[in-house]
Amino acid sequence: MNIIRSRLQRLRNLLNNKGLHAFVIPSADSHFGEYVQERFKVCEYMSGFTGSAGTLVVTQESAALWTDSRYFVQAVQQLNGSGVELMKLKDAGTPSIEQWLVSQLESGEKVGIDGSLFSLEKYQMMKRECGKLNVVLVDDFFDEIWDKRPLFKPKKVRIVPNEISGATSGEKLKKLNSLLKIKGRYYYILSSCDDVAWLCNIRGADIEYNPLAYSYAVFDNNSIHLFISPESVDEEIILLLKDNGIEVHDYNSFLLFLNSMDPGIQRCFCESNISVKNYKALHCNPGNIVKDVIPGGVTAFVKASKNNVEIDGFRKAMINDGVAWVKLIKYLEDSFISSSDDLYEHSVAEKLIEFRRENLDYLGESFAPIVAYGKNAALPHYSFTNTVKVMKEGLLLVDSGAHYPYGTTDTTRTIVCGEITEEQKRDFTFVLKGMINLSRAVFIPGTRGSSLDILARGEVMRGGKVYMHGTGHGIGHNLCVHEGPQSIRMEDNPVAISPGMILSNEPAVYQEGKYGIRIENTLLCKELFDNEKGSFYGFETISFIPLDMKAVDIEMLSGDEVDWINRYHRDVYEKLSPYLDESLQDWLSKKTSNICD
Amino acid sequence: MNIIRSRLQRLRNLLNNKGLHAFVIPSADSHFGEYVQERFKVCEYMSGFTGSAGTLVVTQESAALWTDSRYFVQAVQQLNGSGVELMKLKDAGTPSIEQWLVSQLESGEKVGIDGSLFSLEKYQMMKRECGKLNVVLVDDFFDEIWDKRPLFKPKKVRIVPNEISGATSGEKLKKLNSLLKIKGRYYYILSSCDDVAWLCNIRGADIEYNPLAYSYAVFDNNSIHLFISPESVDEEIILLLKDNGIEVHDYNSFLLFLNSMDPGIQRCFCESNISVKNYKALHCNPGNIVKDVIPGGVTAFVKASKNNVEIDGFRKAMINDGVAWVKLIKYLEDSFISSSDDLYEHSVAEKLIEFRRENLDYLGESFAPIVAYGKNAALPHYSFTNTVKVMKEGLLLVDSGAHYPYGTTDTTRTIVCGEITEEQKRDFTFVLKGMINLSRAVFIPGTRGSSLDILARGEVMRGGKVYMHGTGHGIGHNLCVHEGPQSIRMEDNPVAISPGMILSNEPAVYQEGKYGIRIENTLLCKELFDNEKGSFYGFETISFIPLDMKAVDIEMLSGDEVDWINRYHRDVYEKLSPYLDESLQDWLSKKTSNICD
Repeated sequence: MNIIRSRLQRLRNLLNNKGLHAFVIPSADSHFGEYVQERFKVCEYMSGFTGSAGTLVVTQESAALWTDSRYFVQAVQQLNGSGVELMKLKDAGTPSIEQWLVSQLESGEKVGIDGSLFSLEKYQMMKRECGKLNVVLVDDFFDEIWDKRPLFKPKKVRIVPNEISGATSGEKLKKLNSLLKIKGRYYYILSSCDDVAWLCNIRGADIEYNPLAYSYAVFDNNSIHLFISPESVDEEIILLLKDNGIEVHDYNSFLLFLNSMDPGIQRCFCESNISVKNYKALHCNPGNIVKDVIPGGVTAFVKASKNNVEIDGFRKAMINDGVAWVKLIKYLEDSFISSSDDLYEHSVAEKLIEFRRENLDYLGESFAPIVAYGKNAALPHYSFTNTVKVMKEGLLLVDSGAHYPYGTTDTTRTIVCGEITEEQKRDFTFVLKGMINLSRAVFIPGTRGSSLDILARGEVMRGGKVYMHGTGHGIGHNLCVHEGPQSIRMEDNPVAISPGMILSNEPAVYQEGKYGIRIENTLLCKELFDNEKGSFYGFETISFIPLDMKAVDIEMLSGDEVDWINRYHRDVYEKLSPYLDESLQDWLSKKTSNICD
Repeated sequence: MNIIRSRLQRLRNLLNNKGLHAFVIPSADSHFGEYVQERFKVCEYMSGFTGSAGTLVVTQESAALWTDSRYFVQAVQQLNGSGVELMKLKDAGTPSIEQWLVSQLESGEKVGIDGSLFSLEKYQMMKRECGKLNVVLVDDFFDEIWDKRPLFKPKKVRIVPNEISGATSGEKLKKLNSLLKIKGRYYYILSSCDDVAWLCNIRGADIEYNPLAYSYAVFDNNSIHLFISPESVDEEIILLLKDNGIEVHDYNSFLLFLNSMDPGIQRCFCESNISVKNYKALHCNPGNIVKDVIPGGVTAFVKASKNNVEIDGFRKAMINDGVAWVKLIKYLEDSFISSSDDLYEHSVAEKLIEFRRENLDYLGESFAPIVAYGKNAALPHYSFTNTVKVMKEGLLLVDSGAHYPYGTTDTTRTIVCGEITEEQKRDFTFVLKGMINLSRAVFIPGTRGSSLDILARGEVMRGGKVYMHGTGHGIGHNLCVHEGPQSIRMEDNPVAISPGMILSNEPAVYQEGKYGIRIENTLLCKELFDNEKGSFYGFETISFIPLDMKAVDIEMLSGDEVDWINRYHRDVYEKLSPYLDESLQDWLSKKTSNICD
């Protein structure tokens, strides 16, 4: 019997005992970040699906897993033989989880969910859309099914000094208070680990790639309560935090703290960010709730606009990373012209890490590097294996980023390995034009990312191609490489793009079965100028890696685009050359020389 | 005593008698169009404010009028001495009407509104935001205050033949039904006069500039009930309508019809489009309501995408209008170089109408023409007087459109009268670049207008200038010159720009006290090409009037922009020259000759 089928059978027996008719298992923990610790990968354990975003729903008769287009290919393979049906999100005809439940169950039957894995907003939506079904909150019971379920493993945190954070926890608290404008005493309940890390100026190691500690925080006008595993903090750290106005509590005492809160004190939270279990513990009533209506929450909003010290840190991180990339690209070019040395996707990734390690500040990768040769690059979230050889023709896509104590990087270059086709050249040039066009945007305060998206995507569409992902995501300051609330995508997002925000700029073309092209720089939003009409914002590109001009059809570029490339390449040389030896300087000087218009 | 003060006093006395503590008077009738008949201009009568969009709110102590930035200057003048306070919509610190009412009244006090002037959506919002105030529906009682209040004056309608509409009422009904997908019997209640005109293939003359008849319609799977004044239809028209499946009822029987509807038949409507008075008459209960959730309603949605016959009509209307514009621009140029002939703003408007009249199909203007010389053009909605002389220097802005039986036009040209400054030339070129950039857009199905807006606005902002109005509005087919639901604006609008939609393209620059520049063409959305990635949409420019190249700094244009201008001017000459005499042909040939790049 397929192992997943046997696990599902054990779940069904348990559901029967508990009087539940269905159970919904999202790939989440109670902090709603992008990744979770092994212990919380219940969806993966129960379905076999390893993608970072999936929801498994199980009834006595059926099981189905919802995921998005990034994971369709992978999900088909991983669900094979399990009896779990794949539900493709956003595909026409795919029912929502709630619609599917309504179609499977009888009125009044019980749908179980773990209240710690659903935000209040999601729970309320689910209850509404489940109509006459009964949505029931239960506690995690998967220890009964999951043999040798990993324990939660907390790691030690480090403190971010003020020279790197640019603001003390007290200063951040002041800013949050002034934005919240709440009259009277209140507690703000903060669940997202990266907002807690930002507010408390700590970094952890509990989650892969994201330097976070499992933690909650509760703050009021004057003080911060940090809930974290005792194993994550020693006496020295506790004292340092105390000096910064932060009182440390045991992570496991959080629910009790919420439960025993003075009923007279107001509770403030963001509905998309608090688990329904924690919400219930708060004993809210209409009189003591203050909703945080800022999209994503006030902490994410303030965190998004980096201060000058953080921005300086990003600049430094980008130069470190640019130096490693230059070494990688030179290494690749040398290997493309040499007759020896077999090159594999995984060895390219290792080589980049090796070059990054030459800088002692390097802390690790900011996400699993994507090294995709040829047709593999047509899958936007391809993970390399160690069997794919990089040949001396076509295109190689490398999307990779690193953490430094003072900033995080995320850059993509598509590199010419040898002969390329006219179509590849044309597509590369359209992607480049899109990337440049967004870099050159000028806009007024209040402009949303969905208004800017067309500047990049429009050039790709002019070439008769599309990419179905966003053009830009926020990037954390030695925090998550995907950070909200800002974005540059087709879908509307009410968040205005504002000075201090760091965003990726990554238009692309994917030709299934053939090749993929993506060019990704990092943008800093800033005020370009002001006059009697007000402020005008735009972007400064802060990532410095040469563009492979062998893939560009210069005839397709406008004069402004040629100027942009020449200016960018001059910047790349100026920023990076002080850190390169003479032979790399010579190489980079050629790679960044002016193109004529 | 100021006449407005005395009118408000009479209203306050009446409110006192009726036990009302406040009254809210929008500039609307029960059809929610842009303009209303004289009889319904209660807001204007009571406040003295003549703008097309205002809401007057009166309490025993205070009175205030809310309007938008188009009308701030005018409202300040017109409210002077009336004691009515101006409330500037969207200005920081301006309270909403509801917030203001809450601050003026005590809990439980009564706010009166005429239920025929508020949509269900607006009423529900108002009730919600008025909190503990009591929102009370009353019938129009202004006959008691307004001496010699004009009577409703219905005019005769005309039938639009199928050769012009391109679809019979029956065919339109079929399409509506297939989109609504309602199971079981239902009545759809339609309140907007332009949707009724479109569905019934009639045009009226009850409202200035908009060829509409005051009317409602109710349709179901098979038939259409038209509610219209008996004076608007004669026997012949009634029979013609009957042949098309339309049963004519008296306008005044509409409420009774709603009131006596079979309770078992479902009622379908769009909440933003039905008056709360009509809604109440429907006796809705949760079991018999089907909400039309298409933004703006299903009729507006279908009407927005013009059929091929309508599109051909638009093309013909645009050529008619282009011919008149060419004559006007030549006339202006001649007068700028001659020493005689005083030129006034109003005489320019009259001259354009005179040239339009040379075409026998001309039905009238589609809106009050804007002819604005020099600093007057800095007011986006300036109405000319007959005292402003057009001098032989600077810029003249002409924004004007016409109705033809088969289409409606709306175009703006900014014309060089003599010497212009470098700043004017630079701004004109940025506006032109923006207009061209939007014209050249390529996008995929599902793209919203708010995503495209930056293509035009971004160029103007690059020049350090802004315009605070939308870039594009829909245009009706011998219907309203401003037609929804599509738009191209900064503000989000969920409606996707789709083939068959006609839109204006009108970026601008306004320099207060100095000059204004606006260039407006008309776009037809269509599929440009398709491939394995799907469909790609874009625009065809269908208005044909030469651009004044004397105001362009050619150095600022890209090669693509130069190509666009040359292609456009070649089209202008090809389309218009067959209808011009030799001297105009020669003139146009020079005006549309290629510029080099």
